[in-house]
Formats: sequence, C-alpha cells, structure tokens
Amino acid sequence: MNHPPLNVNRERLDADIRRLAEFTDPNLPYTRRAFSPEYAAAREWLAERFRDAGLDTRVDAAGNLIGRLGAGGGPVLMLGSHIDTVEAGGRFDGVVGVLGALEIARRLRESGAALARPLEIVDFVCEEPTIVDLSPLGSRVMAGDVTAEMIAAAAVPSGEPLGEAIARLGGDPARLHEARRKPGETLAYLELHIEQGPVLERAGADVGIVTVIAAPCRAVVSLTGVADHAGATSMADRRDALAGAAELILAVERAASAPDLAQESVGTVGFLRVSPNMVNVIPGRVDLTVEARSTQSEALLWAREEIERSLREIAARRGLDATLEWRHLEEPVPIPVEMQDVIAESATDLRIRAMRLPSRASHDAARLAPVAPVGMVFIPCKDGRSHCPEEWAETDDVAAGAEVLARALLELDAQSRAVR
Amino acid sequence: MNHPPLNVNRERLDADIRRLAEFTDPNLPYTRRAFSPEYAAAREWLAERFRDAGLDTRVDAAGNLIGRLGAGGGPVLMLGSHIDTVEAGGRFDGVVGVLGALEIARRLRESGAALARPLEIVDFVCEEPTIVDLSPLGSRVMAGDVTAEMIAAAAVPSGEPLGEAIARLGGDPARLHEARRKPGETLAYLELHIEQGPVLERAGADVGIVTVIAAPCRAVVSLTGVADHAGATSMADRRDALAGAAELILAVERAASAPDLAQESVGTVGFLRVSPNMVNVIPGRVDLTVEARSTQSEALLWAREEIERSLREIAARRGLDATLEWRHLEEPVPIPVEMQDVIAESATDLRIRAMRLPSRASHDAARLAPVAPVGMVFIPCKDGRSHCPEEWAETDDVAAGAEVLARALLELDAQSRAVR
Repeated sequence: MNHPPLNVNRERLDADIRRLAEFTDPNLPYTRRAFSPEYAAAREWLAERFRDAGLDTRVDAAGNLIGRLGAGGGPVLMLGSHIDTVEAGGRFDGVVGVLGALEIARRLRESGAALARPLEIVDFVCEEPTIVDLSPLGSRVMAGDVTAEMIAAAAVPSGEPLGEAIARLGGDPARLHEARRKPGETLAYLELHIEQGPVLERAGADVGIVTVIAAPCRAVVSLTGVADHAGATSMADRRDALAGAAELILAVERAASAPDLAQESVGTVGFLRVSPNMVNVIPGRVDLTVEARSTQSEALLWAREEIERSLREIAARRGLDATLEWRHLEEPVPIPVEMQDVIAESATDLRIRAMRLPSRASHDAARLAPVAPVGMVFIPCKDGRSHCPEEWAETDDVAAGAEVLARALLELDAQSRAVR
Repeated sequence: MNHPPLNVNRERLDADIRRLAEFTDPNLPYTRRAFSPEYAAAREWLAERFRDAGLDTRVDAAGNLIGRLGAGGGPVLMLGSHIDTVEAGGRFDGVVGVLGALEIARRLRESGAALARPLEIVDFVCEEPTIVDLSPLGSRVMAGDVTAEMIAAAAVPSGEPLGEAIARLGGDPARLHEARRKPGETLAYLELHIEQGPVLERAGADVGIVTVIAAPCRAVVSLTGVADHAGATSMADRRDALAGAAELILAVERAASAPDLAQESVGTVGFLRVSPNMVNVIPGRVDLTVEARSTQSEALLWAREEIERSLREIAARRGLDATLEWRHLEEPVPIPVEMQDVIAESATDLRIRAMRLPSRASHDAARLAPVAPVGMVFIPCKDGRSHCPEEWAETDDVAAGAEVLARALLELDAQSRAVR
C-alpha cells in the first residue's frame, strides 16, 4: 500500500473525548443513555463538530447522526460507532469509533487527500441495550431489521414513546424506510472500538483485527412464587421466587463455563428485580435477564437449551411459575477475510503491532454485516475493563487505531477506484 | 372463671377493618408504611375512634397512640398491636390487635363492666421493618431499648429525619424517656394477632395460644466484585457479585433447612438490589438482607454462624469483597406459662377450640416482654398467608379471638383485685 500516514491530531482527539465525557447524567458517572437529555445535548455538540469539520451533516429517519464528506452519488465508504452509554459506563466504548472517524474526516480534508468515494461518518443511535428488544437500534434500522411497527410499540426508559424520542433527535419514524441501506450501497464499513477485554493488553499488541463478532442472545425471565411472611412460613411451605432465581443464576454461569465452551461462550444475569423486596417478606416474584454469547453458533444453541432446561427443572421442583422469552437472538458474525487482511496490511505498513482476535462484545458492525462488508479495529483498554467508570484507553492507542483505520479506508477507496 | 361474655359487635369490628384498609398508598394494595401520608391519615381516623369510644387519647413521646379507660394511677393492663403494614401487605396483620382491643374497650364501657385497673389500648408505631435498625420502634422505646441518639441518627424511607417524622405524628423525641415503661408498671400485656402461618387452619382450631415468640436476626450484606462488560469478559476473568449473592441465598436456605432445625428455624433473603443492574453489565455490587429466625437460641446461633461461614467461603473463592453486619438481634421470647393458662381457660370457658403453638413471626409482645408479662392470642388466616394482599381472616375468627382476649383480660384484672 502506498498512502501517506494521516497524522491524526492526538491533542484534538483527546480534547474531544474529554469534552464528550462531560455530557453525563448528573447523578451517575459517564452515563449518557440513548434519548436522555444529556444524550440529546451531546448529539447537538457532536453535530456542531461534524459541521465544523466541513461535513454535510444530517440526522436520518432512524435518528442516526451522519456527516458526509465528498460529493456525488454511488456507493459510500462508512465509518462509525455510537456515543450512548450504559448506566455508570465509560468514556471510550463507542466514543473512540465516532470521534476517531471525525478526526479521520478532518485530517482527510486538512491534508487535501481526495477520496474517490463519498465518506459517511455515522453516530448510530441507541447501540447499548436501552431498549432491550430493539437495541442496537440505528444499525439495525440501516440493515432493514427494524420495522415501523416495532418502533411504534416501543418506549424509552422515561416512558416516552420511541417514535417521539427519535423525532426529538431529528429523526422521522414515518419515513423509516429511507434510513435503510441496501446491499451494494455501502462499499465497506469500518469501526474503531476499545477491545473491552484483556487480550490485547496481555499480548502487548497495539491494535486488534477482529475475526468474528460473538452473538448475544438475551431473554427476559420471570419467576413467580408466593409472597409470604418470612417468619411464619416454614421452609417446607415456601415458594420463594428469589431462591429459584439464585439457582438459575448459577445454572447460567455453569452453562457458559462448560470446559469445551469456556473459550467461546459467556453467560450473565446482569439485571434482577425482586418483588416486594422487603427484609421480612418471602420474594413472590423475580424478574431478570439472561444473556448468553458465543463466537460459535452450536455453542450458543447448546447454552440456550441448557438454560431453558435448568429453568424448567427449578420451577417444577420449587413450585414456581416461570416464563422465559428470548427477545434478542443473533448469530455470530464472521468478518470477511479480505477486510481483516486490509487492516492487517495497514498495521504492518505503519509498523503498529497487530493481532487477530474475536470480539466477544457485539457492535454496530455486526448488524451492518448483512448489507456491507465490515471490518473492525480494536485498541487495548486498561485491565480489559469496560461498561464501568474505570474504563480507560490511552490517547496514543486511540490515535494508533485511527491511523490503521484511516489507512485501511484509503486502501479500500483505492481498490474501488481500480475496479471502477 | 366467672365473667359474662363480652359479646363483641362483629359488624362494628368488621366495618372498622374495612374502613382502615382504605387508608393505603394509592399505587400499592394495602400499603400503609409507618410515617407515610396514608399512615398519618389512618392514625387521625383511629384517634377519633379512640375518642368516640370514650378513651382518654394521647400520643406518647415515641409516637405510640394510646387510649386509656379508667381513672386512677398504678399498674395498667395493656392491649395493643400496630396498624402499619409492609409494602403490598394485608388488611389484618396488626390491625386485628388494635381494632380488636378498641372493640373490647367499647364493649367494656357499653356493658358497664368496671375494671379494677386502668386499661390502655396501644397502637405501637412502626412495628414493621420500615427502619431496619430500629423497628419495631414503639414497643422497643416502651421497653427502654431505643435511645434518643439512635432516633437522631435514623431517617424514614422518604428521607425525613426520624425525629421529625415522630413529631409529625404527635410524638416528642426530646422527651423519649417519658414513653418508657418500667417493670411493674404494666400488669400484663395481651395481643391479638393473625397467625401468619397455616398451623391453626390445618388443625381446625379457632384460636391459638402462643408458647414462644421466635427471634428474628437481620443482617445487611454487601458483595462487591467488578462491574464489567458482559460479553467481553471471559467466565474465568469475572468477579460477579450477583453469582456470589446467588450462592449466599442458597446457603441461607440450607442453613435454615437442616433436618434438625426445619421445625424451629427459617432463613430468608427478602431484599436484594443489584448495581448497575443492566442486561449487558456483570453485576459489580449486590446489597441484600439476610433474616434468620428460630424459636431456639442455639439453633439461631448455629444458623447465623453457618451464614457467616458461607459468605466468607464464597467471597474468598470468587474474589469478592463481602461485608455482613447484624443490625437486629433478638432472643426467642418464651411466654409465661401463667399467661398461656389464663388464655387457655378463657377459651375453654367460651367453648372455643384452642391449641398452643409457637409464633414464628415476631410481635410487639416480644419487645414488651422485658417490662411486662405478655400473652398472645392467634387467630387463623386463610392458607396461612400474610404480608401480601391475599392475607385474609374471617370476622367470626377475629371476634372469637377478641372474646378470648377480653375474658383473659377480665380474669387478669380480677386476679390483680384479689391480691391488691
């Protein structure tokens, strides 16, 4: 490959990351949940940065913020990620992908490097599971995976109808189809992201090249027993929903920890709510979520069946009513080898140490895979931690990742020029 | 014994129970937590009923509502219970003791039966564990078991300082010592209550005579791990606070279910809160309560040690930080045999089927035991259920229990007259 380095402006990128972190729920660290007031304010700030960078900036019907560089029609090159967070989240998850892409667009303009194809920078709306059934929302709409009916039936955590929340950000749910991208309209989608795990850090690699994106499956579970006096009800007479939930939590852990799966699968109960939740009342009902992920389809199916079997057994033995509904089912997404290779060569050219690894977290890239060739560049994050206030990535690593991403982008653009 | 039956007015008692049930949180069934607006309104209504019944009515320094019948000083006879509820509680727990006592006082006045001793009807403030460290508040203050400093340091669930909440009900925390009763000042305390368990119903008994009141011990536990990305963190790298809590919940259940304890002990995790409580974040922290109860001191001690040992083992194995603090420690309270016998003879005289049984729930009677001989009459409740909206007692059973209680009261008054 024969492209000059983009020379990402580290200070500007660092300042952007710091500024964006200031848009947070005042009561929780680094919390900018999709559709919240702080999210809307961050979006305003980001759109202004897009315009400052000379990007033709708009919000699509789904509520994705899109900045476009370069005129003309035809297939586009796309970079992106998301700026929404989980509760008490971090400063880098999603953010480095969006601000890294913005910095790349700025440097392309400043250096006068003309792309043959239009470039679109996308901040996908609601990547985090703020709306369990529909997240990641923006990339799913783009892939044609969310209908207007699904949006009409959903609400954001504040209770506001989802359609109104999207319109508030500048989207237009009535024209949802306009946000959809057909296969062929996107030449390639590249995403820069923190690894959210410890592999790169432990290996001493500067960037990671994602080989496969693990699939998350999420279920909502309810266990209903009998709320009763915690003193007067003998152990034999109880139908304790929380004791049943405790067994299920451990069953989920076991299902993901079987020796032949431990490298590929994880299982988590992250959300749990007890009713009535009083010190002296036997829990009558527990609602919880189960999440299973794997890089292998068969392992995921096995874990799901194992979790369902455990729940049936627990409920029958304890006299509980149990329901389990899979609300979110994905398949692992292999990254095309050609996309991996373009990224690997870019890193080699830049003398940046790279390694290939699976992504155990899911990303907007996974949802766009049906409509575009996707590639992902990972950067290390401290102690592998993410989805927590301690989440940390060094500016040098963010910049190195952006350089690799930019070089891969230029190469893909050059390849498209060659075959035009 | 030679006392005419009191002939409790069933319709009036039933109407009182129905009326009191209307004072509830508008969003939860039968919810009248201590110090809430609906509790304060119910207190106003109840004080009016006390005055209508000709009782000399006041609120003591602790916030207990007291109606007095009969002039003169010296030791008093006392009847009482509480009208506060748990969340989504029932219509009878505590209520039958207060309204039954009110009905007894009314019938004593109407029938012209003069007691030798003054009679006090007490609605004890905050019996339910609304304030984990201090409940049952009113009876504990009366027994000298709560200091002004403890009240100054506590708050009610709304965040209001406890002292202000007590003052709002008509109490005076600055004069807390005036609410205290010394041994000898109370000739006897009798309490009517629903069983909150299935024993009477299963045995076909009309009333129960309590032999011992089980002691509740309550601890607050926190488990702290590492909140992390639920996809990217391998099973081996996790420090999942909820998985640890799940093991503790099952350890509490086992500690109370050991074959030699199953008849005497219970153990419950009734409250549990997860942080950050998101579907795709490994729980970083879990706060929960552990409650153990037993009618036997040694069994209770064993269960407590077993729970502590389990928590240490779980925390060490999973790399979690764990704290456990016993906030509430009681000893089982045996009911004096003479008090049991007075109640038993009253039931026999009235041809009401009675049986002796332990109380697995705790009551204001347990806290008054250090300063007065106490006795308790239980009535059946449907399916043994309590602390839930389905809690139900038949008016005939409430009336029968009140008749037995009244006859025991008259007998205790007569005995005190004899030895005067």
